[in-house]
Amino acid sequence: MAKSALQEARSKYAPKLPAALEGAVKVRLGEATKSVSDQDAIQSLFPNTYGLPKLTFEASSEAVEAKPLNAGVILSGGQAPGGHNVIAGIFDGIKKIHPDSRLYGFLMGPDGLVKHNYIELTSQIIDEYRNTGGFDIIGSGRTKLEEKEQFDKGLEVLKKLDIRALVIIGGDDSNTNAAVLAEYYKAIGAPVQVIGCPKTIDGDLKNEQIETSFGFDTATKVYAEVIGNIQRDCNSARKYWHFIKLMGRSASHIALECALQVRPNVAIISEEVEAKNLTLDDVVTSIAEVVAERAKNGENFGTVLIPEGLIEFVPAMKALIAELNDFLAHHEGEFRAVASEDQRAFIIEKLSKANSDLYASLPTTVARQLTLDRDPHGNVQVSLIETEKLLAEMVGTKLAEWKKDGRFVGKFAPLTHFFGYEGRCAMPSNFDADYCYALGRTAACLIAAGVTGYMSSVQNLTAPAKEWIAGGIPTTMMMNMERRHGEMKPVIQKALVDLNGKPFAFFAAHRAEWAKTTSFIYPGPIQFYGPAELCDQPSRTLALEQGK
Amino acid sequence: MAKSALQEARSKYAPKLPAALEGAVKVRLGEATKSVSDQDAIQSLFPNTYGLPKLTFEASSEAVEAKPLNAGVILSGGQAPGGHNVIAGIFDGIKKIHPDSRLYGFLMGPDGLVKHNYIELTSQIIDEYRNTGGFDIIGSGRTKLEEKEQFDKGLEVLKKLDIRALVIIGGDDSNTNAAVLAEYYKAIGAPVQVIGCPKTIDGDLKNEQIETSFGFDTATKVYAEVIGNIQRDCNSARKYWHFIKLMGRSASHIALECALQVRPNVAIISEEVEAKNLTLDDVVTSIAEVVAERAKNGENFGTVLIPEGLIEFVPAMKALIAELNDFLAHHEGEFRAVASEDQRAFIIEKLSKANSDLYASLPTTVARQLTLDRDPHGNVQVSLIETEKLLAEMVGTKLAEWKKDGRFVGKFAPLTHFFGYEGRCAMPSNFDADYCYALGRTAACLIAAGVTGYMSSVQNLTAPAKEWIAGGIPTTMMMNMERRHGEMKPVIQKALVDLNGKPFAFFAAHRAEWAKTTSFIYPGPIQFYGPAELCDQPSRTLALEQGK
Repeated sequence: MAKSALQEARSKYAPKLPAALEGAVKVRLGEATKSVSDQDAIQSLFPNTYGLPKLTFEASSEAVEAKPLNAGVILSGGQAPGGHNVIAGIFDGIKKIHPDSRLYGFLMGPDGLVKHNYIELTSQIIDEYRNTGGFDIIGSGRTKLEEKEQFDKGLEVLKKLDIRALVIIGGDDSNTNAAVLAEYYKAIGAPVQVIGCPKTIDGDLKNEQIETSFGFDTATKVYAEVIGNIQRDCNSARKYWHFIKLMGRSASHIALECALQVRPNVAIISEEVEAKNLTLDDVVTSIAEVVAERAKNGENFGTVLIPEGLIEFVPAMKALIAELNDFLAHHEGEFRAVASEDQRAFIIEKLSKANSDLYASLPTTVARQLTLDRDPHGNVQVSLIETEKLLAEMVGTKLAEWKKDGRFVGKFAPLTHFFGYEGRCAMPSNFDADYCYALGRTAACLIAAGVTGYMSSVQNLTAPAKEWIAGGIPTTMMMNMERRHGEMKPVIQKALVDLNGKPFAFFAAHRAEWAKTTSFIYPGPIQFYGPAELCDQPSRTLALEQGK
Repeated sequence: MAKSALQEARSKYAPKLPAALEGAVKVRLGEATKSVSDQDAIQSLFPNTYGLPKLTFEASSEAVEAKPLNAGVILSGGQAPGGHNVIAGIFDGIKKIHPDSRLYGFLMGPDGLVKHNYIELTSQIIDEYRNTGGFDIIGSGRTKLEEKEQFDKGLEVLKKLDIRALVIIGGDDSNTNAAVLAEYYKAIGAPVQVIGCPKTIDGDLKNEQIETSFGFDTATKVYAEVIGNIQRDCNSARKYWHFIKLMGRSASHIALECALQVRPNVAIISEEVEAKNLTLDDVVTSIAEVVAERAKNGENFGTVLIPEGLIEFVPAMKALIAELNDFLAHHEGEFRAVASEDQRAFIIEKLSKANSDLYASLPTTVARQLTLDRDPHGNVQVSLIETEKLLAEMVGTKLAEWKKDGRFVGKFAPLTHFFGYEGRCAMPSNFDADYCYALGRTAACLIAAGVTGYMSSVQNLTAPAKEWIAGGIPTTMMMNMERRHGEMKPVIQKALVDLNGKPFAFFAAHRAEWAKTTSFIYPGPIQFYGPAELCDQPSRTLALEQGK
């Protein structure tokens, strides 16, 4: 298979390792833990895996005699840069325990476990994937491991392959399910440990214990590179407003991190929109005001960052979508009978006043997306709404109004972009390559320690890698009870952007200046070779959170 | 102004220089030249600047005594990575001739010359922009320097500032106009030399004399990076077909270069579509066949690269657009009176049979773009047509038909992307940083040599920079006569993709294999620090053209 020069070079990169993991390792037990809230409920649901101590791995001078062990690994959910290095870390870790240890990869996500599709990951395969992006080594999938039947079916193949530990690499939901699986296997006395690993470019799997999920660093650096390039173009051509939507299903961590890296004229943070109960018109007005203000200085150009999840954080849009879902579910046939060109008027007539007005204010294409492109359950597919075009068009309409009464005196030519797939499978930055490899090596230590229901944890991430602290966190520690599909469920709390946190505070303190003056920063492409300040910096979010 | 770590690091980069330009320089005169064709016509239009010899600069041991000189510089047309380094090269070059030399930058393109808007480029300003992307140091613009009044108006400010030489950095049209300006100033005895520099990311300003235009290398590497990332995602998720449109107004050099770098499943080359007289349906069918073939192996994913200029190379689309332009010009009022939802049917009824059928086959949104979004002259704005969505939708329609008779057995979920602004102002690769700086230094040598009507030329570009050959090419040498707006004009021949050239031949020899098997290459981000094979490689196009 032909490779690029960088693929060849990166295949030889040796990830930096926490000093504690370099030689033999011993376990230090912390105090017993409890869940972040709803302790009684969580404890009753996890009688066998609740309250376990935090673990830390320390360097040891005593070599431990060990036997070969077999482990399995699953990639769950969306791609994130560094997944291959987690697997390489597990592989090297269990081979270090004993050269005859084996690692099996279940194919295309949790489905591979349930359907018994797997391969053995040999050193030849592993070496082919070190420090590469993507999840293509074994593929990933979105099947949720939730049912007893799935667990039992999985156990068959785990037993057949004599697998002693299963590592599940995933986001908050996948790690929640991993904890449920750990509890189940423990409860029925099945001899399989279950270990989780924190993955997601969205950055919403983080808490007191998990400093960041892997992939966030690389993905945001790729987005910041191309946004920076667009900003340079914007500042050279001086005639376009670029509306740039950024992936991140719900939370706005990606948009915030990119804003911190590139200093755009505007960045919308969904969590703030919701907290302030802003309407779509409020958001549009706030952007139009920046455009109008810059136009006074003859600067008819700029950048606007938009988080993909925005629409669902606008309370009024949420209400509109809810009524639409409800109405269309009950009037499917009636709606289908209306001629395509009359559907908009039909909907406007049927909705309640507030929602009808909002719907009528939307551009035709978006209105059409809201009623036509529904998912198999009949719901509006919010992720298909081209929010960047919606906002660009509505800002244009508002500015045209303002032009009439002299409130806007410039030109407004918008261009739109959406970045997502460009970053999810990028070659991991040194940070993610190192972090992921350490997470994998740590997972191997957790396997050796014989524990279950833990997540692999590497902390102190803004220090040099040597000083990183490797350990294990009982997954139940991060849980609380939340309503999901009408039922109370134990889940890992999803981290939204903290409006009282330091990253948002830095943004909020500077955005007025960035809006008015052109303060663009151009991060450029990820560099792998060179001084640490060029190649090994963590995200701005992490640095600010840790007071760096 | 806050800067990224890479901005700081790159500001210290010293571009590699051809050995001949390191110390004192002497000029070697070549033979007298003639234009590529239409020699008599070109000679009669350029009596003072036709037939000049090619120049080569060689290292000299004799120091030359020289006086201070003032030069001016203009950035013309679209942004391309490296423009700032051309200017830095001119600056350093004329300062080397004499420390009291001065460089003036005309602002926002040729307009700055005509309207006398300029700044003096001091070492402080120049140092701020070394090795950076963008044209923001003085801005660019698209005004064409074509009229005697502009030339005379420009001469006023050139005389006022005692400017002895004007360097125009631009594409084929701008360099054509530079040659006309050189001839004019020479003819009237104005003491101003005019020198051109070959710029354009499109890669269509190249010929026997100009190996490549600057910016092409960096822009294509940025596009190849993100396309490669998408391909890795595509190969991991295994469920999407990505339709990726690439900037490049007319020629398909960018799409071809990216294809050579990333090995996609499909890449459309406009020049081939035109040469084979393919219809839109032919193009759609060829893509659908690849999708169907891969689906047989369960591979319902892949990538399709689409050059931005495609539509105008499809003869049938060209005919449709011509008839539409003509029809709408003559029936403007009548068309406007038709209700929006009836316009499509109205057009279908009015066009000739062949064009009407083609129009009827287009997706609604594209049909609408063809009639609604017209430029100030009433013409269809082809660049606004979302060709990537058009093809994705039409391929989907075709596959749905094929599904009925069992010719297609898979799933087809397309996603679309357009890359352009991401690359035009990227930080220049080492190649472009070096090449541009050398072009600027060479321009300074041409100024010192007292010549006019030349383009700065640096050749032997696939060798190490030390071995590059610096010189000057009489611009008339690259000219021929072409019909423009109904008149025969002397112009630099635009280079389309040569279907008999080595880059296309390599692509054509491998595409069947790339279509069927997943042969993706992942170039990753541009690297600036490390071994030459990682950081200093020229484009694949250039390497293949030069037999490397």
